[in-house]
Amino acid sequence: MHTPLLITSPANPRLKALVGLRRRRTREQEGRTLIEGYDELGLALDAGVVPHALFYCPDLMGEAALADDLVVRVGQLGSELVEVSRAAFEKAAYREGPDGFLAVVDAVDRRCADLELPVDPLVLVCQGVEKPGNLGAMLRTADAAGVDAVVAADPVTDWGNPNTVRASKGTVFSVPVASDITAVTQDWLRAHGIPLIAATPDTETEHTEIDYRGPVAIAVGTEKTGLTDEVLDAADARVRIPMVGRANSLNVATSAAIIVYEAVRQRSGGAR
Amino acid sequence: MHTPLLITSPANPRLKALVGLRRRRTREQEGRTLIEGYDELGLALDAGVVPHALFYCPDLMGEAALADDLVVRVGQLGSELVEVSRAAFEKAAYREGPDGFLAVVDAVDRRCADLELPVDPLVLVCQGVEKPGNLGAMLRTADAAGVDAVVAADPVTDWGNPNTVRASKGTVFSVPVASDITAVTQDWLRAHGIPLIAATPDTETEHTEIDYRGPVAIAVGTEKTGLTDEVLDAADARVRIPMVGRANSLNVATSAAIIVYEAVRQRSGGAR
Repeated sequence: MHTPLLITSPANPRLKALVGLRRRRTREQEGRTLIEGYDELGLALDAGVVPHALFYCPDLMGEAALADDLVVRVGQLGSELVEVSRAAFEKAAYREGPDGFLAVVDAVDRRCADLELPVDPLVLVCQGVEKPGNLGAMLRTADAAGVDAVVAADPVTDWGNPNTVRASKGTVFSVPVASDITAVTQDWLRAHGIPLIAATPDTETEHTEIDYRGPVAIAVGTEKTGLTDEVLDAADARVRIPMVGRANSLNVATSAAIIVYEAVRQRSGGAR
Repeated sequence: MHTPLLITSPANPRLKALVGLRRRRTREQEGRTLIEGYDELGLALDAGVVPHALFYCPDLMGEAALADDLVVRVGQLGSELVEVSRAAFEKAAYREGPDGFLAVVDAVDRRCADLELPVDPLVLVCQGVEKPGNLGAMLRTADAAGVDAVVAADPVTDWGNPNTVRASKGTVFSVPVASDITAVTQDWLRAHGIPLIAATPDTETEHTEIDYRGPVAIAVGTEKTGLTDEVLDAADARVRIPMVGRANSLNVATSAAIIVYEAVRQRSGGAR
């Protein structure tokens, strides 16, 4: 392991380049994105990610991070190591209360055609979702539930958005994700014989009345307008989550979790 | 309806008092909190809330809000109406992209003993939850699922936190909520013969293996450390949500939604 570069100036061009990756255009041009945080980086490494560079600041690290020596682990992967002073790191970090880890990695850039599916796949399609927090939350759900692929159809937010990466707790690197236009996503599902279940308030069928065993894709839409007619018209079934209250919409990530876990219950032979 | 007061200066003391309500201490001293936003205010009015005052800015309102004349509706309740110039309103608003509605209302301040329960209640207990966004998301779930009471046990965030009010989409005023210390909450549940189901990763029992028909309380803990031993030891059952992935925790609000909706499925006689 080489002696790492040390940056102490917040105006350092390397740090400015990091900040530049917060912009989608820069991410797309460079095909790279950021992972911030000890937990998130650990998950990404576990998923096989090899960072291009790790910017780290021992002064900001917690005890667990110091003891774990994640920096050494990243160095052993051949990644460039750059030590950064506290003042400079805090300038480059995008979250409040940074914990001293900021890595540059390849952005996830996959289309539906790049995904490999097992027999009887469980797929989640998120159409037009805008908020990185929701996209990240759905990835955590997909990770926990063992969803085989998550497709962002016509995404407003890209998978490389650092806030998505953060909200996903790094699962964007472990869950098979792709983004594609809606029509291509639908063709891909059809070609693989995967029925599409559309979540929408406009149906009488409750989400527990559908059989999710076998291959199945669950689709959710944007917070404001839900799924487009393009998806609703082509869906093999529409389901609604029963709601009795006044506020007429569950959060999209919450809705996805409820339906995905109903599928998990059925697929695991849940008895009651 | 009186001609409303008009404020054009961001330094106006009435507006400064509004900003003061963002602090928990001020809210507790005054027993008041803020509702911001057309949708949130509408939900609160539907739930019977009568604002002390409504600060509004026509220049910031969307078409729906202008057509609906929510201002007149609030004025008819006897609430004070204060028109505010755009520059001044933007100073007082706490969210980005304000839509011209900011109301001062009584904060929700209830203990367990104040709650009225139906036969066979479904209760959600959130222990020590820190993030207003999570508390609000759980209220939306509780509202949608028809949960009969939500108790914040040893809450770090109060129900009056404007970010909780916002994240709840105003359901904090329609769902029966209370806050209390954990021991009192447990005594209250016992006194009402309500078994407590504790969500925790440290059990082999999956959340779908438990019978939620009849009276039942579901308890979730903090994001970081989950429920305290105090709750886990006293619980009538512990359940875990099955997880196969790498990131070992679903968001607390997501976990609550999954378990609550399993209870809803069972209680509605979900067959499959």
